[in-house]
Amino acid sequence: MVKLFKLTSLEEAKKVIYSHWQVEPEKVETELTGALNRVLAEEIIAQTDIPALDRATVDGFAVRASSTFGASEAMPAYLKVVGQVTMGETSNLEVGPGEAVYIPTGGMLPEQADAVVMVEYSEELASSEIAVTRPVSPGENVIKAGEDIKAGTVIFKQGHRLRPQDLGMLASQGILKVKVYNPYKVGIISTGNELVNPAEVPAPGQIRDINSYTLYGLVQQSGAWPILYGIVPDDFDFLQQAVKKALEENDLVLLSGGSSVGTRDYTVKVFESLGKSGLLLHGIPVKPGKPTVVAAAEGKLLFGLPGHPVSAMVVYRILVHPLLYDHAYRDSFEAGVQAKLARNLASTAGREDHIRVKLVERNGELWAEPVLGKSGLIRTLVEAHGEIVIPEGREGLAAGEPVKVKMF
Amino acid sequence: MVKLFKLTSLEEAKKVIYSHWQVEPEKVETELTGALNRVLAEEIIAQTDIPALDRATVDGFAVRASSTFGASEAMPAYLKVVGQVTMGETSNLEVGPGEAVYIPTGGMLPEQADAVVMVEYSEELASSEIAVTRPVSPGENVIKAGEDIKAGTVIFKQGHRLRPQDLGMLASQGILKVKVYNPYKVGIISTGNELVNPAEVPAPGQIRDINSYTLYGLVQQSGAWPILYGIVPDDFDFLQQAVKKALEENDLVLLSGGSSVGTRDYTVKVFESLGKSGLLLHGIPVKPGKPTVVAAAEGKLLFGLPGHPVSAMVVYRILVHPLLYDHAYRDSFEAGVQAKLARNLASTAGREDHIRVKLVERNGELWAEPVLGKSGLIRTLVEAHGEIVIPEGREGLAAGEPVKVKMF
Repeated sequence: MVKLFKLTSLEEAKKVIYSHWQVEPEKVETELTGALNRVLAEEIIAQTDIPALDRATVDGFAVRASSTFGASEAMPAYLKVVGQVTMGETSNLEVGPGEAVYIPTGGMLPEQADAVVMVEYSEELASSEIAVTRPVSPGENVIKAGEDIKAGTVIFKQGHRLRPQDLGMLASQGILKVKVYNPYKVGIISTGNELVNPAEVPAPGQIRDINSYTLYGLVQQSGAWPILYGIVPDDFDFLQQAVKKALEENDLVLLSGGSSVGTRDYTVKVFESLGKSGLLLHGIPVKPGKPTVVAAAEGKLLFGLPGHPVSAMVVYRILVHPLLYDHAYRDSFEAGVQAKLARNLASTAGREDHIRVKLVERNGELWAEPVLGKSGLIRTLVEAHGEIVIPEGREGLAAGEPVKVKMF
Repeated sequence: MVKLFKLTSLEEAKKVIYSHWQVEPEKVETELTGALNRVLAEEIIAQTDIPALDRATVDGFAVRASSTFGASEAMPAYLKVVGQVTMGETSNLEVGPGEAVYIPTGGMLPEQADAVVMVEYSEELASSEIAVTRPVSPGENVIKAGEDIKAGTVIFKQGHRLRPQDLGMLASQGILKVKVYNPYKVGIISTGNELVNPAEVPAPGQIRDINSYTLYGLVQQSGAWPILYGIVPDDFDFLQQAVKKALEENDLVLLSGGSSVGTRDYTVKVFESLGKSGLLLHGIPVKPGKPTVVAAAEGKLLFGLPGHPVSAMVVYRILVHPLLYDHAYRDSFEAGVQAKLARNLASTAGREDHIRVKLVERNGELWAEPVLGKSGLIRTLVEAHGEIVIPEGREGLAAGEPVKVKMF
């Protein structure tokens, strides 16, 4: 069990959080045209061989490979053209020794043919004869029946998120409906007595609720369904009631706000009050994002994100996005833009530093320029193209070092 | 004018295509909750200063910085606490020399205070007094009014695609509705006598239409609206009629299929028949993807993509996605996963080679393993995590070279 009220390592934090994430969303059936980015709730097994029959991969002449052995520019093999394959039609042609049949790309190979001579290596002579100037080996320029997909093989595992080419693969199998999981439902609550609905004009000392909308977009980007619960005042009872309702109606709840000590205290107390599991951790070694609180209740998760928009987004991307999008924490495949760091950056060892950067091209090279400004500034998020991470073990990065910019 | 029927350089091809792309989609108004990934059809100008008033960025004490000058552990500055700022309420407090006011993070600074002492560098003494052990300079731990955003500045330019944090920025300004462009409409046609609707069982020599569904997903991923027009037989009149209809109803049309010479001829003839502009180019120096045809008609574009699913996807990603997603060709910021190439790869100089790869972790390093197989195999697209590109100028890549994997 993780020690509470202590900054745990990020890896440890992820393990604890993941072990409490036990929601399986509803399964629904969807058409292929609605299946992009959805997660398969079933295993998909190939129904038929693809291709069903041997097919040509080039335009040319279907032959017995043996008819072309030894052919060269100087000593072509002369073959008799005995017919042509028409696309989309069954071919009843047979190709004997010394014979050839014209075949277009994708055409079905006639009986006894085992290779295709590319049209570029043949010359049409008079009287249905061609000269072949290069030998082909058996199987050359042919996709064999079942070479692409064998009936009975597993094409996709349950849990696979469908990409465009996966839709094509399903179509090739005649599978036009698939069972997918419904997106996770994510409740979003903002807390803070100073917050007002963006539709209102803030009085002095008040500010508009920013995080509800940033988180709304982030949750959509993670392939989940966001639901806004609005602004809840800093009060134990109100907060507890709102969190309970949101937990009932969702798989995961994001509570943001409360950067001041007082509000954070309420959040922690409410999270502790959730019964079994309750508070999992309080504080993570990430800058910005230290005052993060995570709790669990019956397999659902509750994240208390920092109130600063920048910090809330950093923590969301580290802890929440992977759970919603990948259903797990793994980051080795995370894509980024390679650039050189434009200036020295200091950092404290023992915590992960997330720095917002702008990408600038200079003399054909891409440079990552830190966007300066206090972490409370939303402008820095808007000006930045992405972020770079200084890992826990490093005390800084030097100007000119290669960095990976995770775009956002 | 580009020379037709000749492999042009990819850069030249992009210039010609882009100069003929003159569609401006309809403008519509949308709520913030529907604005993610939409493209702004208007410039957004800040309405109000953010923050509206000076605010604390930490929990602590609002002071006049001058009251703390010279303070140290050995010689603290002793300040009188004259009140506290409550979140969300207007403060009428004034802070005189030698005075302090408790303030939570985000709290509005009282009159005459110009800095905040972090609670960590203060010690509460009896009788409303604190000892400050570090000096603060004016503006320290404070966001000044308008420091984040000044009223009147341009926040977003027209044409900006809205990210999650941008929604937060708009909320901060009380902007809950924005004018955005409707997504581009993209018509998708498959052609080939051998193709059948995936719902049907193919007869020998026939195959199911794969590309319609792969392209459907790709177009969705590009933020555009796909419309399927089904399968059209290889026949000039049918094809011309289908293309004309799709062009009328869409901003851009994708025609795929026809890898055989005969079909390609029909596509070219139909494209030529479109009148003004007509055929722009025939063939691009990309493997796989050479038999690509592009035409223009009244500012709209028509792409004849190769029939092989792999080639169709490669060409889509190079020529079509940037137009739909970025409204332009630019790729310097394109994100990828850094890996090492697992084996030597040969290539022909003068053409861009796109190789599908699988990412594999070995001894803590990420390796890109080429997914072998003829380009007609859809399995290679499904097995691959992404692709690497061997540029036009290179004759190959060596095992162990660093490569950028563009995920798909």
